[in-house]
Amino acid sequence: MIKTITSSSNSAIKSIRKLKIKKIRDETGIFYIEGIRLVSEAVRTGQELVHLMYCPELLGSEFGREIILPFENQEDILLEVSQDVFRSFALKDGPQGIAAVLRQRWSSLENVRQKGGIWVALDSIQDPGNLGSILRSCDASGGKGIILLDQSTDAYHPSSARASTGAIFTQEIIKTDFSTFRNWKNQNKIPIIGTYCGNATHYRRFQYPGDMILLMGSEQKGLQINHLNICDHLVTIPMTGSVDSLNISNAASIILFEIFAKKEEK
Amino acid sequence: MIKTITSSSNSAIKSIRKLKIKKIRDETGIFYIEGIRLVSEAVRTGQELVHLMYCPELLGSEFGREIILPFENQEDILLEVSQDVFRSFALKDGPQGIAAVLRQRWSSLENVRQKGGIWVALDSIQDPGNLGSILRSCDASGGKGIILLDQSTDAYHPSSARASTGAIFTQEIIKTDFSTFRNWKNQNKIPIIGTYCGNATHYRRFQYPGDMILLMGSEQKGLQINHLNICDHLVTIPMTGSVDSLNISNAASIILFEIFAKKEEK
Repeated sequence: MIKTITSSSNSAIKSIRKLKIKKIRDETGIFYIEGIRLVSEAVRTGQELVHLMYCPELLGSEFGREIILPFENQEDILLEVSQDVFRSFALKDGPQGIAAVLRQRWSSLENVRQKGGIWVALDSIQDPGNLGSILRSCDASGGKGIILLDQSTDAYHPSSARASTGAIFTQEIIKTDFSTFRNWKNQNKIPIIGTYCGNATHYRRFQYPGDMILLMGSEQKGLQINHLNICDHLVTIPMTGSVDSLNISNAASIILFEIFAKKEEK
Repeated sequence: MIKTITSSSNSAIKSIRKLKIKKIRDETGIFYIEGIRLVSEAVRTGQELVHLMYCPELLGSEFGREIILPFENQEDILLEVSQDVFRSFALKDGPQGIAAVLRQRWSSLENVRQKGGIWVALDSIQDPGNLGSILRSCDASGGKGIILLDQSTDAYHPSSARASTGAIFTQEIIKTDFSTFRNWKNQNKIPIIGTYCGNATHYRRFQYPGDMILLMGSEQKGLQINHLNICDHLVTIPMTGSVDSLNISNAASIILFEIFAKKEEK
């Protein structure tokens, strides 16, 4: 018999709220997600659940309630909470009454060589929403994962998880620094294709290798000189109009779907 | 001689802060932007300035200070404010010390026929950041403007203006309801190409007309049946992986750059 948590100062609930803070996510290796869609994707893809929180009054959806059934006897995982308690950790107004705490999964550069395919490396990406939607587009175009270089935002930030619409559970995610990445590249010879605003090959006129890393710079600065130096080739998206660049997740998506379409057309 | 505003309860400053609220923006027909890049784009593209606010202590950049010079004798427009006052209306942490209030520009369906070219119609788009980055991609791919249908988010929301990186000043922006749009379409016969997750033409195997409207549904629901019915043709972006759709601004960008590339290749 599950006991409903009605106090938002309950220690487990306090720990859940703290997962909004990157330092706490880094230290604990866990993260928070909410909403029927994201939680059902987490369960479907076999993520390691630390907690599954639900509020019966808020969880109107039949589909939402079915997510909980397999966990009904796992009291250490399943937390039934009151409306007030749920709202104390929910990030979105009008919460759906289901949320979860999951173990972070981190992959390593070794997997890039072993798995092959298309990967995206991002230098110091700042916006977690952009990162999440790149994960989504990478997944949708058959990519294998993301390599986060240096001071990149956290893939397990709630906005990244939400924007990924579940791709965070299926994509490989690697965090490393540039010098480790460069040394690894020198040893492993996996082609790196950089995106560059300037003199480079038109992104539609390049034959992308089957195994490759697409390297992109930050929202503000683009690719830095030391990043350009490790690229085997540079591609560019020619544009017109008054703006001088694209949103990074839009640029990534345009190139990822170019690669995907070319592969399909073969 | 400009007098520095040092009280954040000054009536002009109070009005500026209220522009965060959509209802106030709708009633006044003005909106708020901040940052050197966006304000300089507003001045460069000749937007109608209601106020140009700056804080000398925060505005370190030489380029930023040059934006102000032409307005030095226009005391009704230029407002010099203290740090505290600037921070009272600034949206971003670490503000750059320059911001502006501008007159909203609204275009009409009449211009779609007159100007021709590529337009994007969005049904009930919810996220202002998505809208802003669609404006940016539309501009960058040579598109003419955006048609916002029904309960769409506000193009002049600060997040939309920021994400547009200035495209909000150059793109035509139209707001209308679906039945007006449908009647107009029936009279004007401009081709509408809808994007659809399902049985439709591969977006790379369609010859897009030179004058057309790309119609897209909301983030949550995609195109509704009454919207599908006014389309002359439907295109789809085939995908793989575990997610079932793309972020709307990523999908829009992929198709807009397909159209742009096909036009260039002719």
